[in-house]
Amino acid sequence: MGETIKTDVLIIGAGPCGLFAVFELGLLDMKVHLVDILDKIGGQCAELYPEKPIYDIPAIPLVTGQGLTEALLEQIKPFHPTFHLNEMIETIEKIGDPLFRVTTDAGQVFETKVVVISAGGGSFQPKRPPVPGIEAYEGTSVFYAVRKMEQFRDKDLLIVGGGDSALDWTLNLHPVARRVTLLHRRDDFRAAPHSVEQMRKLVAAGQMDLQIGQVTALEGEGGHLTGAVIKGNDNESVRIDCNTILPFFGLTMKLGPVANWGVTLENNLIPVGTASFETNVPGIFAIGDINTYPGKLKLILSGFHEGALMAQKAYHYVYPDKRLVFQYTTSSSSLQKKLGVN
Amino acid sequence: MGETIKTDVLIIGAGPCGLFAVFELGLLDMKVHLVDILDKIGGQCAELYPEKPIYDIPAIPLVTGQGLTEALLEQIKPFHPTFHLNEMIETIEKIGDPLFRVTTDAGQVFETKVVVISAGGGSFQPKRPPVPGIEAYEGTSVFYAVRKMEQFRDKDLLIVGGGDSALDWTLNLHPVARRVTLLHRRDDFRAAPHSVEQMRKLVAAGQMDLQIGQVTALEGEGGHLTGAVIKGNDNESVRIDCNTILPFFGLTMKLGPVANWGVTLENNLIPVGTASFETNVPGIFAIGDINTYPGKLKLILSGFHEGALMAQKAYHYVYPDKRLVFQYTTSSSSLQKKLGVN
Repeated sequence: MGETIKTDVLIIGAGPCGLFAVFELGLLDMKVHLVDILDKIGGQCAELYPEKPIYDIPAIPLVTGQGLTEALLEQIKPFHPTFHLNEMIETIEKIGDPLFRVTTDAGQVFETKVVVISAGGGSFQPKRPPVPGIEAYEGTSVFYAVRKMEQFRDKDLLIVGGGDSALDWTLNLHPVARRVTLLHRRDDFRAAPHSVEQMRKLVAAGQMDLQIGQVTALEGEGGHLTGAVIKGNDNESVRIDCNTILPFFGLTMKLGPVANWGVTLENNLIPVGTASFETNVPGIFAIGDINTYPGKLKLILSGFHEGALMAQKAYHYVYPDKRLVFQYTTSSSSLQKKLGVN
Repeated sequence: MGETIKTDVLIIGAGPCGLFAVFELGLLDMKVHLVDILDKIGGQCAELYPEKPIYDIPAIPLVTGQGLTEALLEQIKPFHPTFHLNEMIETIEKIGDPLFRVTTDAGQVFETKVVVISAGGGSFQPKRPPVPGIEAYEGTSVFYAVRKMEQFRDKDLLIVGGGDSALDWTLNLHPVARRVTLLHRRDDFRAAPHSVEQMRKLVAAGQMDLQIGQVTALEGEGGHLTGAVIKGNDNESVRIDCNTILPFFGLTMKLGPVANWGVTLENNLIPVGTASFETNVPGIFAIGDINTYPGKLKLILSGFHEGALMAQKAYHYVYPDKRLVFQYTTSSSSLQKKLGVN
């Protein structure tokens, strides 16, 4: 990764609340970068229910998670936010008043005046299959995502799972790997029928293998896998040669490194005040599902509201010498005092 | 007006925040009546800027006030709210724990467990023209709205103004009144061109009169008008016979009778807590532009959020013995049934 990126605001999480925060910050002339661990924009909406209807976004009787994401992207287009996908924030270090140095697991460094945590339920992380000792092979022989297909050239691949990820990577990596075995616990797949059909054709043609069952043990040493033991539904075990395993068991939400960022946590949530949704660390805000306060509801619309109020306070950090002229408010003198504009 | 209407929730103000509150209350099985002083649904959005674009409703890059109102009406259709337009709440009396008797200026009586004040900047009230002593004639010879045309049969009407209301009532009341004079301060009208054209035809045909100038004095006694003095732009004054004046100078926002409802006010706003947006009176809530709390922004989106949190607390008043389980529209089949989509 390249040079340190300097920005007014860094938003952690590119779900709907993070996206709408770009709008509210943009109205107040603040420049925004967003980082998300997912490979796409939209957070849970895009990852968990892209095609499921949502009914409770005000004035939108029906929208899918994907549709909501697209509408928000359209709305924030004038503000040209920069997205950093497939990256996870690892550290946040206070280096000014306020100024933060933030690093990602991809080595990117940001210097930002304001941090907005809109990380939903935390980080989406792949579910680990219940195979004894699998941790010892992670990162060397066991991978939960494919970042570069070339990495798997000429490997003996064992792909595990029955959903779209498992089937798509089976089909995509089949021409690259030396041999692909797809393993699923039953002979019935949730993946798109067309993908399943293609896979079955390759199996019928002898170009790949399909196994029904579960991995019960791994063989290898020093993190280098040599084989796996598979127990079939008939309780018979077989051993297959493989030097790489790609388990696709879906994603689970984990708090992840938020715990190390110096913000107070209560039951894996970040307590905030309702005037600006700032955490205990001045300059670090938390909006959306990850925060908590009296009356909190985990509604997307509440995260939108929280982003609007957050932006008012963020402005004060980004432009300490400027007075904020409200465009949509009349004069709450207590708010204006808080913001230093009265 | 008829019998006392019993309801779970009475919402005062049918602007966007009141409308979306119907949705949040409806999801929780609460029955709602709404009262608005305007003759239409939509509050300020419909009255002040029906065709003006709004850009800051989340996930709606652009919508007019009218469009927003229509989208909300579509969204709350499954909950069948009842609207009482052209009525102003006059009194709120606590008669239970909580139970309120609420009366309107049209004589309607409600008994409701919960009151939600979503009255925006207060009541829209007609602007009074700057004519000395006009108050003495209001309600007897001077009227700011036409509720029944028959009331003006065979009257000598002076209609004042240059917008749509003035022109529309000129054309509508012309066949009913004995004689209509339209008065405007200049010979140039903001009203729809077609209405202006029709008016000019009637004037040309001698069927009504058009005067350019302003009322400077009224004649009459005991509230009964006999004539008005009109000063033209040439500074010449003329006197005309008239026994009724209808001034249409637009609407202005006034707090109105809110001040008498027993809720604490601060600078014409109602202080609320941010956990449920309840006022100092248990069972009376305030959402949208009329409330205040630290950080408050007068954004429509904040009123939406406030309505959602209000509904949770309202539920406990309406169903004191039931336990509320928080559900999402995306995943709860019982909520989807209520919405008529499952």
